[in-house]
Amino acid sequence: MKIFSKIFKITQLSTIRLIVLFYVVAVLFSTILLSFPFFHNEGVELTFIDLLFTAVSAVSVTGLTVVSTAETFNAAGSIALAVVLQFGGIGIMTLGTLIWVLLGKKIGLKGRALIQIDQNRATLGGLVNLLLKVFKIVLIVELVGTIILSTYFLQYFDTWYEAILQGFFGAVSATTNAGFDITGSSLQPFSNDYFVQFVNMLLLILGAIGFPVLIEVQDLISKGRREIHPKNSFSLFTKLTTLTFFILILVGFVLILLLEHNGTFFADKSWHERIFYSLFQSVTTRNGGLSTMDVSEFTNPTLIMMCALMFIGASPSSVGGGIRTTTFAIMLLTIYNFSKGRQSIKVFGREIETEDIIRSFIVITTAGMLCILAIIVLTQIENFPLMAIMFEVSSAFGTTGLSMGITPELSTPGKCVIIFLMFVGRIGIFSFLFLLRGYTYKDNYHYPKEKVIIG
Amino acid sequence: MKIFSKIFKITQLSTIRLIVLFYVVAVLFSTILLSFPFFHNEGVELTFIDLLFTAVSAVSVTGLTVVSTAETFNAAGSIALAVVLQFGGIGIMTLGTLIWVLLGKKIGLKGRALIQIDQNRATLGGLVNLLLKVFKIVLIVELVGTIILSTYFLQYFDTWYEAILQGFFGAVSATTNAGFDITGSSLQPFSNDYFVQFVNMLLLILGAIGFPVLIEVQDLISKGRREIHPKNSFSLFTKLTTLTFFILILVGFVLILLLEHNGTFFADKSWHERIFYSLFQSVTTRNGGLSTMDVSEFTNPTLIMMCALMFIGASPSSVGGGIRTTTFAIMLLTIYNFSKGRQSIKVFGREIETEDIIRSFIVITTAGMLCILAIIVLTQIENFPLMAIMFEVSSAFGTTGLSMGITPELSTPGKCVIIFLMFVGRIGIFSFLFLLRGYTYKDNYHYPKEKVIIG
Ligand SMILES: [K+]
Ligand SMILES: [K+]
Repeated sequence: MKIFSKIFKITQLSTIRLIVLFYVVAVLFSTILLSFPFFHNEGVELTFIDLLFTAVSAVSVTGLTVVSTAETFNAAGSIALAVVLQFGGIGIMTLGTLIWVLLGKKIGLKGRALIQIDQNRATLGGLVNLLLKVFKIVLIVELVGTIILSTYFLQYFDTWYEAILQGFFGAVSATTNAGFDITGSSLQPFSNDYFVQFVNMLLLILGAIGFPVLIEVQDLISKGRREIHPKNSFSLFTKLTTLTFFILILVGFVLILLLEHNGTFFADKSWHERIFYSLFQSVTTRNGGLSTMDVSEFTNPTLIMMCALMFIGASPSSVGGGIRTTTFAIMLLTIYNFSKGRQSIKVFGREIETEDIIRSFIVITTAGMLCILAIIVLTQIENFPLMAIMFEVSSAFGTTGLSMGITPELSTPGKCVIIFLMFVGRIGIFSFLFLLRGYTYKDNYHYPKEKVIIG
Repeated sequence: MKIFSKIFKITQLSTIRLIVLFYVVAVLFSTILLSFPFFHNEGVELTFIDLLFTAVSAVSVTGLTVVSTAETFNAAGSIALAVVLQFGGIGIMTLGTLIWVLLGKKIGLKGRALIQIDQNRATLGGLVNLLLKVFKIVLIVELVGTIILSTYFLQYFDTWYEAILQGFFGAVSATTNAGFDITGSSLQPFSNDYFVQFVNMLLLILGAIGFPVLIEVQDLISKGRREIHPKNSFSLFTKLTTLTFFILILVGFVLILLLEHNGTFFADKSWHERIFYSLFQSVTTRNGGLSTMDVSEFTNPTLIMMCALMFIGASPSSVGGGIRTTTFAIMLLTIYNFSKGRQSIKVFGREIETEDIIRSFIVITTAGMLCILAIIVLTQIENFPLMAIMFEVSSAFGTTGLSMGITPELSTPGKCVIIFLMFVGRIGIFSFLFLLRGYTYKDNYHYPKEKVIIG
């Protein structure tokens, strides 16, 4: 351990750089793991870029695939992939800490600071306890999901063995919002099975709504209502992110219904089919990436709207990517309050810090520019329709994993662009910007302020 | 006058609402003016929506046209249109004040406040003087432009009469960055005449670089170098906007050259043709809207990049629209300084106010959401390629006036969307947000602040 701490001291790696380093290591480890022929079906040969792409997609729980998971990986490979999804989903830091805890090592402040940033938790206290809780919750959700899905899948599959494999992989893929599938065509075989869709939506939401929310809900349940009034027991973060999360799902649901009203895909569908297709595809843009249909059958307005939803992504401290729900909510609140002429942003009886407002806007604009840049590069080097490229870019940055089908046909430079977006989407714009920073710059001097004319 | 002030008091119109009211009146006046058959060529009949579209496009000096200006308007009509462009370009407030000044009326604080916001001038002092200067500069530029272009056009046109009309309209359209043309195909007839292109680029830049910049330069020239060092005599605004303005032109120029390197349009062009096509089309995205080629011949990457440039638009307090150069510059500076870990935004030995930073981000994100919304609506109601719609939306919001050719074929609801964007682009996101505000809300109470996890 002394050597390690020395190396860290010598290279003066910042906390965020360490996290990025861990992610890089996880990607390399996954690349090597998934390259073993033991995990592949017979006759499968993977190029390095496709292996790397699969590893990044798995570690970042995006779910974009250049090769069919079902055709490439055998049963053992599927389980190996599920392990990688778990790594990526719960966060490498969480898992690393747990291993330390299990081995009885004491976690120093340095280690704790790492976890804090990875999970965006604002206080250092009780972090280990917190992580154990996160791990416990995720495992319980996955276990219950596996049992329900496997039992139910007995009617679909010939052997109990295959039903359990499908149920297990499906539960892990949904809970971690990974979007990988071993059916060969996502949840399209279950497009008329509302029970499977319902269970999947529930798992997707539990994974993407943010661990602090789950923990606060669990705390509330274990404490009981007698101790504290539920209204006051939730943090501003939990209230804001949960409200935004469900509003986004509702808006997506209603807009898909409206925009596709005269579309060809809904033409021969009944009202309940329309409702379930709209609802599932709206939920999946939060971060799931699973789908009950070929999304390229939607019309352009719906697809653009879904791009926006994927760009926003999931809650912070969840398995998801994108700019995150709170960032989007603070932007809307700031614009609204400004247009009302208010000087401060009030919400749920609290005020938002000016620093957080500026940070939100930095995240949004940086992400927007990054995506536009990626679209320009991809339209230049690839020969796909603009809509398909915009969709792919939003999906990669949001680590959503939905695609209009161009992923396997991307050129190697194109794959590199998507790999980069998935990586940035997962570590977050914040960590990405910190990563660019050469050194911490203390500015103890000031210039006179001068007003500038704004647009 | 008493009745008027009473009406204003009764309806409690805010300052910005008055400006919007003036713009609305100008549009109505222009709609009526341009509807006179006296101004039309024989056999021309205009629908109301086309007249309204033309009036809004002229008052906002955008230059998008649903009818060919050359085919619709006769010589008298062209002069009437030039007058409307002048109205829109210099700003109705400026002109209104000047009329008051010429009539010997004293301008009250209320009147001055109006001009201040319309021209974004941060101090109230010497406003009338300032406006006279603006008017004088624009007139001189237009006069010189008319003389040069008319004289030069004698070689192109059969009669001196037509040469002068073309020269006059061309100079006014370029200086006000209106983008209207009476050649029937913008500056495409002069695609090999570098002199005409050079004069036009100069006029476009003088109109779009911002009046404060022109005034500060004029002040410097009239004062002479002996009084004050030029480096210190320019305001932060002038330095920031001018630098951004020329960097954007340079970036656009280089990127068009690069992205079109293997494109079909440049295939048979010589190096100097490529340079002039790239340079002119980059300058015109700042706000001009004139073009020396059919922009739809460019490839998608170039067109997307031009969308971004048009979205940014011209300098504040200029004839142009968009989010404006300073807004974009402050965003970039904030992101850069943040990623360097700095607490304040320092530039040219000055610091940017936190309020200005938040305002910039509000302008950018509101504009972005507005454009995405417009794109979703237009893709839903129109049957044009996504690229053409994105280009049209960016061009309308930036009041640039470039088009891939879909403007005349838009449906009536589609025309209404573009009219709305041109209007908002011209009055600016700021005024637009103020317009939404029901009443000025004073918040004298505060809630405790609470940190929220950002993306
Ligand atoms: K995903
Ligand atoms: K224009």
